[in-house]
Amino acid sequence: MAIIVQKYGGTSVGSVERIQNVARRVAAEQRKGNQVVVVVSAMSSETNRLLALAAELSETPEPREMDVLLSTGEQVTIALLTIALHSEGCAARSFTGGQVHIRTDSVHSKARIQDIDALRVQADLDAGRIVVVAGFQGIDEQGNITTLGRGGSDTTAVAMAAALKADECQIFTDVDGVYTTDPRVEPKARRLQKITFEEMLEMASLGSKVLQIRAVEFAGKYNVPLRVLSSFEEGGPGTLISLEDEEMEQAKISGIAFNRDEAKLTILGVPDHPGVAHQILGPIAAVNIEVDMIVQNISEDDTTNFTFTMHRNDYKKARQVLEQIAQQLGAREVIGDQQIVKISLVGVGMRSHAGIASSMFEALAKEGINIRMISTSEIKVSVVVDEKYLELGVRTLHEAFGLAEA
Amino acid sequence: MAIIVQKYGGTSVGSVERIQNVARRVAAEQRKGNQVVVVVSAMSSETNRLLALAAELSETPEPREMDVLLSTGEQVTIALLTIALHSEGCAARSFTGGQVHIRTDSVHSKARIQDIDALRVQADLDAGRIVVVAGFQGIDEQGNITTLGRGGSDTTAVAMAAALKADECQIFTDVDGVYTTDPRVEPKARRLQKITFEEMLEMASLGSKVLQIRAVEFAGKYNVPLRVLSSFEEGGPGTLISLEDEEMEQAKISGIAFNRDEAKLTILGVPDHPGVAHQILGPIAAVNIEVDMIVQNISEDDTTNFTFTMHRNDYKKARQVLEQIAQQLGAREVIGDQQIVKISLVGVGMRSHAGIASSMFEALAKEGINIRMISTSEIKVSVVVDEKYLELGVRTLHEAFGLAEA
Repeated sequence: MAIIVQKYGGTSVGSVERIQNVARRVAAEQRKGNQVVVVVSAMSSETNRLLALAAELSETPEPREMDVLLSTGEQVTIALLTIALHSEGCAARSFTGGQVHIRTDSVHSKARIQDIDALRVQADLDAGRIVVVAGFQGIDEQGNITTLGRGGSDTTAVAMAAALKADECQIFTDVDGVYTTDPRVEPKARRLQKITFEEMLEMASLGSKVLQIRAVEFAGKYNVPLRVLSSFEEGGPGTLISLEDEEMEQAKISGIAFNRDEAKLTILGVPDHPGVAHQILGPIAAVNIEVDMIVQNISEDDTTNFTFTMHRNDYKKARQVLEQIAQQLGAREVIGDQQIVKISLVGVGMRSHAGIASSMFEALAKEGINIRMISTSEIKVSVVVDEKYLELGVRTLHEAFGLAEA
Repeated sequence: MAIIVQKYGGTSVGSVERIQNVARRVAAEQRKGNQVVVVVSAMSSETNRLLALAAELSETPEPREMDVLLSTGEQVTIALLTIALHSEGCAARSFTGGQVHIRTDSVHSKARIQDIDALRVQADLDAGRIVVVAGFQGIDEQGNITTLGRGGSDTTAVAMAAALKADECQIFTDVDGVYTTDPRVEPKARRLQKITFEEMLEMASLGSKVLQIRAVEFAGKYNVPLRVLSSFEEGGPGTLISLEDEEMEQAKISGIAFNRDEAKLTILGVPDHPGVAHQILGPIAAVNIEVDMIVQNISEDDTTNFTFTMHRNDYKKARQVLEQIAQQLGAREVIGDQQIVKISLVGVGMRSHAGIASSMFEALAKEGINIRMISTSEIKVSVVVDEKYLELGVRTLHEAFGLAEA
């Protein structure tokens, strides 16, 4: 008898009819002879309704109270889904995050799961019940309600699967798997049968919004096999995310990720001396701006040019901070660009295949696409290009690396 | 420094604007130098919205899951009110029933409070915070969410006041106090300044819907002074419900209660023998029908007639049961009437004043109102009359006992 954890997001439970559909799917999984835990999000319109109510009362509501407010969203869904499961003839019981002891730290609205007590859940499973758990929420040591932040239900599902040593954690979404790239940009994009945790992490961090990054990290850490499936089309195998296996090693590249939300800033003519990188990035970090790519070049006159990228929403604030730093350091000038995108090749096969990067640069050069920045990791090569080249760049690379063929 | 518990019902927190009004009132109470605990219900439309969702999924949803569902209503209100209090510049913190350890039995949807741990609340009060508590809900020993049933927020407030040894428990409603009778029936009805717990219990059990009966019982048991106030009109003193004092003893009658929801059934010609009352009422109780007044008369032929009243909603079911009993006991006939009402005089002064009942019967007789049944208690005289006499009866008695004068 296998233990399966299923997670359904806000769109999948967005109406009474959809909740009934989910109930039928869950019931079918149990009829196969499996023990089933279901983790659900708030109904899709609910979170926005609650946010709007709070916004009428305060521009800066306290995170603790927002967590009390928003956590009601999943609580409504667990009750409704459990009622629907009863109507399907299944024994089932609902639990809030606090009730199954999803213990988190106390960082309201962005809490991290520290521990789950799987005993109570296991007892209900052993009694033949389907266990329905509220995603996205937990309690801290003082019993305060916390939330894991948007998308945190994925993390709840994976953490629950890890605690129960589940055989598979199935994430039901509005897509039927992980694709070689976004099909809206490249219609030839192909669904992957398998992908490794590491690759999925890179895809996710680069804007592929299928799964929450922390959920993938968690799954990798505890080796929980993750499967992404469509909650609307039945029967598809989806994409399995697991540890690297032999079959995977044959592919060089798994997919192409991209991110439209990038902006870059360059500080020109900074007198070069040890510690200058810290002097520049320290104040940026101090105002909670996350820096992505960093490139430093030495110029000939003992000054250096320093470029980094960040989320486009942070551009204005980062530029203000950098202008001050430039004055303090006696730098020549600050220039910036918000019309850039990042395109990345991702694949564990890169490790054993040389020349991926140069093939990539060659393919882009042939189409006249100028590369502004480059950064590489063990399983990823990223380039920054002008925003207008996004579609052309993605399609060119998809073709060049033969991703349309299985 | 006094401890004040305030309770605001669903209408009082029915919109964002009303929640802001409540926040201003609560803040004003704290500025007087008092420690304030606020108990709130779900926003008025919320419970019905949630009930409708569940009804789409099942005709008979499990009470455990309904409690999980409905308890989100108050949780939304506590968060919103606390955010509103922050906007008023007050330190405040919200708590669900479970978080302040409102321990109940496990009778879902009708749970009874067994214990409250006031320590956590007291700590927050001592730290200068307003404590906002979700009414209507608690947890049982296994950590399941329970609800106290409709109107249970009053009970939460009183139980909280008792646990904290509060100086006063203020119940804010859509009326500005307790009246000598329903002003919609008798426009000369007068707001009472004071009333005893016992009298309030009689008024409440007879259909005066200002307060929940269990809340009044609880307040009486732990001697928590209760005050009923209007949540819409500010400044009024409302009505204080407390122990009997000298001043109160001067009034004979405090008020006139009535109940339109009554029906009566009579079983005629029952062979009279010991235990016959139990043989008739046992099966009625077994199907969970609450019987109110009971009258038995002996007739001359060794048979007896037995009449009782119940809620009009239970009439059909009770009649079915009674027809079966009549057959078994060899009784002559079952007759019933759904067009009756109960009118009651209530007052602790009755104890020391003879002749209240006969004055009552005299006043009704003068108007040609025929009395169908009579029942008396230490502080109450009730009569059942035809429904058409309700208004005339109430006004006649209000006049006869001089209730319009303070």
